[in-house]
Amino acid sequence: MNITVWNEFRHEKENQVVADIYPEGIHGAIAGFLEGEDHVVRTATLDEEEHGLTDEVLNDTDVLVWWGHKAHEEVSEEVAEKVKQRVLDGMGLVVLHSAHFSKVFKKLMGTTCDLKWREADDKERIWVVDPTHPITEGLGEYIDIEKEEMYGEHFDIPAPDELVFVSWFEGGEVFRSGATFKRGRGKIFYFRPGHETYPTYYHEEVQKVIQNGVKWVNNGGTPKNVYGNAQPLEKISEK
Amino acid sequence: MNITVWNEFRHEKENQVVADIYPEGIHGAIAGFLEGEDHVVRTATLDEEEHGLTDEVLNDTDVLVWWGHKAHEEVSEEVAEKVKQRVLDGMGLVVLHSAHFSKVFKKLMGTTCDLKWREADDKERIWVVDPTHPITEGLGEYIDIEKEEMYGEHFDIPAPDELVFVSWFEGGEVFRSGATFKRGRGKIFYFRPGHETYPTYYHEEVQKVIQNGVKWVNNGGTPKNVYGNAQPLEKISEK
Amino acid sequence: MNITVWNEFRHEKENQVVADIYPEGIHGAIAGFLEGEDHVVRTATLDEEEHGLTDEVLNDTDVLVWWGHKAHEEVSEEVAEKVKQRVLDGMGLVVLHSAHFSKVFKKLMGTTCDLKWREADDKERIWVVDPTHPITEGLGEYIDIEKEEMYGEHFDIPAPDELVFVSWFEGGEVFRSGATFKRGRGKIFYFRPGHETYPTYYHEEVQKVIQNGVKWVNNGGTPKNVYGNAQPLEKISEK
Amino acid sequence: MNITVWNEFRHEKENQVVADIYPEGIHGAIAGFLEGEDHVVRTATLDEEEHGLTDEVLNDTDVLVWWGHKAHEEVSEEVAEKVKQRVLDGMGLVVLHSAHFSKVFKKLMGTTCDLKWREADDKERIWVVDPTHPITEGLGEYIDIEKEEMYGEHFDIPAPDELVFVSWFEGGEVFRSGATFKRGRGKIFYFRPGHETYPTYYHEEVQKVIQNGVKWVNNGGTPKNVYGNAQPLEKISEK
Repeated sequence: MNITVWNEFRHEKENQVVADIYPEGIHGAIAGFLEGEDHVVRTATLDEEEHGLTDEVLNDTDVLVWWGHKAHEEVSEEVAEKVKQRVLDGMGLVVLHSAHFSKVFKKLMGTTCDLKWREADDKERIWVVDPTHPITEGLGEYIDIEKEEMYGEHFDIPAPDELVFVSWFEGGEVFRSGATFKRGRGKIFYFRPGHETYPTYYHEEVQKVIQNGVKWVNNGGTPKNVYGNAQPLEKISEK
Repeated sequence: MNITVWNEFRHEKENQVVADIYPEGIHGAIAGFLEGEDHVVRTATLDEEEHGLTDEVLNDTDVLVWWGHKAHEEVSEEVAEKVKQRVLDGMGLVVLHSAHFSKVFKKLMGTTCDLKWREADDKERIWVVDPTHPITEGLGEYIDIEKEEMYGEHFDIPAPDELVFVSWFEGGEVFRSGATFKRGRGKIFYFRPGHETYPTYYHEEVQKVIQNGVKWVNNGGTPKNVYGNAQPLEKISEK
Repeated sequence: MNITVWNEFRHEKENQVVADIYPEGIHGAIAGFLEGEDHVVRTATLDEEEHGLTDEVLNDTDVLVWWGHKAHEEVSEEVAEKVKQRVLDGMGLVVLHSAHFSKVFKKLMGTTCDLKWREADDKERIWVVDPTHPITEGLGEYIDIEKEEMYGEHFDIPAPDELVFVSWFEGGEVFRSGATFKRGRGKIFYFRPGHETYPTYYHEEVQKVIQNGVKWVNNGGTPKNVYGNAQPLEKISEK
Repeated sequence: MNITVWNEFRHEKENQVVADIYPEGIHGAIAGFLEGEDHVVRTATLDEEEHGLTDEVLNDTDVLVWWGHKAHEEVSEEVAEKVKQRVLDGMGLVVLHSAHFSKVFKKLMGTTCDLKWREADDKERIWVVDPTHPITEGLGEYIDIEKEEMYGEHFDIPAPDELVFVSWFEGGEVFRSGATFKRGRGKIFYFRPGHETYPTYYHEEVQKVIQNGVKWVNNGGTPKNVYGNAQPLEKISEK
């Protein structure tokens, strides 16, 4: 499996707090725990040529992990459309945290993907509501995160194909924080935690979820569908 | 309830067969059977100013019915975006037949909305698979249409929130021909039949489905959601 | 619309706290706010003959509201089966609070319907996660209940057809507290709040939800489906 | 993975046509193509002690495949309940053809699971409607079966979690012929074809689907959920 971890990679350059937490960038941290025997992990970032997502890279990517926050608008329409198309053609997509507002996710969902938020060191408890789902493998009943940004309902997404996690926040909100979608031939997993000023991507259970998510969205080599004008398979009567 | 029936209105001007079937245009035929005591029905067409969908019209529309086929690309990005936004804000949308490829529907679905098709006078039989659904009220087990264009799977849409109808075609295909989706605050109903060269919109049961669909997507005056930065509802502990 | 409100009616007789809150029984309180111009509301309780659910009553009921808690096992298999069958035949069902463990709901769900619980005066905040749903009409973003019994995930139900509400609890849990299901020709709405030692059914927004729920599950006079051996609708070739 | 293939095994003893097609029984044929490196495959039949499904067998089964038709009522309540419970506890279940009417499937679905049927040598064409699904791996757009029993809508099941296949029948019907459900911790796959008087289980693509289905419902060693009275995870205020 070829994985590409995409990161906006701006906060790390502009905010010392973030740089201290993620010295290799958020993409570096995520790539770190995704590496493994059966995986080749690449990273790509906004400020590279074509945001690091050339046709060559995209065509060679089975699963794309996406983190972005403050520079969604700087992702070119062309690249966003290409990524969307690759998902529809079968590439898996893991969308993390503030990437709910990325061009790619919004194009695939068709909604605003808006939500409530607050940076106030809320405790977050992520409850498993679908213990049958492979994405929950190896977890207990919930994941506790001591401090995180809050995301609250209403989360303006289509009803997920599967709702896997629901978050409880100390300040009184809930959030559908783990959700799967199928679009075209591609599988998508949205997972909420991961604000840049917290060390969330070092949390072992968060890592486990992302590892499971990457496995789950990987769709193998599904063939292309056939569309367009089609000959009848059965004889049509004269009328 | 204020209903606006939108039609591309090109085939009727360019093809005598279509003009003969729908002398008032497809929009005229549809508006005709939607009129009723509690409804005000307007029509709008592609070649009008702003395609007939000014802010004033859109803001005064509870349910929009959309038929288009050969000129999807001539619908301006601006109007398509506005219509999409109105759906997300709560306007109901009934998408008919070849409007599966309309800009508005594709933007709301996030997929290609592609399918197989054939113009060969297939018989179509539309089976009710969700007899609990209000959209099926007043129907029997299926609707027979003597001759129609064929649409076949795979239909590249997100898994519908509710699958209401599945079509059988004489030439050997099936199609998910009645499907509902909720997006933002809006409700959407896609209904397959209605190729321009057949008198399908005079079929009483087809009319019944569209009448039911209009009723079902009408969402009343739901208030706007609240998004963005939010104060805590409960005290957050110092950590 | 003919509504029947069914209540176990035991706590009220055995516990003075409950009797003081609901002097007419929980069924009396619920019947009280359901009465209206277009509705005839009846009540029925466990200790009546056939639990008050004779064939005559059931056949004349469009929507059944069910509250039970400590005596689920005393509901006869025969009556539970009859009620289940009536739902499959089109009667609407609103299942309240501890009725998650009722025979009827468990038979219709096929799962254990188990959950976590705690009686500790938790604050409950019920968030709307599907603002498009008619059941949320007239509500704001959430409903606050000062003190209630806690129900927590994992709630062992099938993935709901529609998830309408998610509860936040002060003690740290979340719960899918408003969920719809279609079974056979019947529509079902499960709504969480309503522990007998709290005056929850006097809460105006809780009443609004139950009123909306009753309306939503009411399915009109849908005809029976046709099952069994069927003649071909098209000619089958010799092979 | 430990697979148990359960078969009623009556038609094979009573009908020479069936015996000639399946000399080792339907269970023998299915077990034959499920055997493989990573699988241990057992069979069990109705007329064995406890229908061959002792606690020891069930507890050692990761995936159960079920075929039954004329003797559903002879399956004891006790065994049916045990099998249902094992599914809720995480055992995968593949339900084939006429097992739609088995006690186990009906208990898990909560509906009548009724349908239309006809034995008239209909041609069946099983269309893939969810090409993203692992159960469709290795298939083309559809599977053709020259002659089969017809099953037609309305199929009285809950709306599937995922609809994978829809069948077209020569005589004019459609059917949701591949559907997945999650119940408790268990995954369920219903697959339509396989009438006893046709050699359907020798069809390579039918075999492929069942092989994929067995893999998909296998849920690994998911831990038990925790239910019942629960201590608060956060401090609850005095009110």
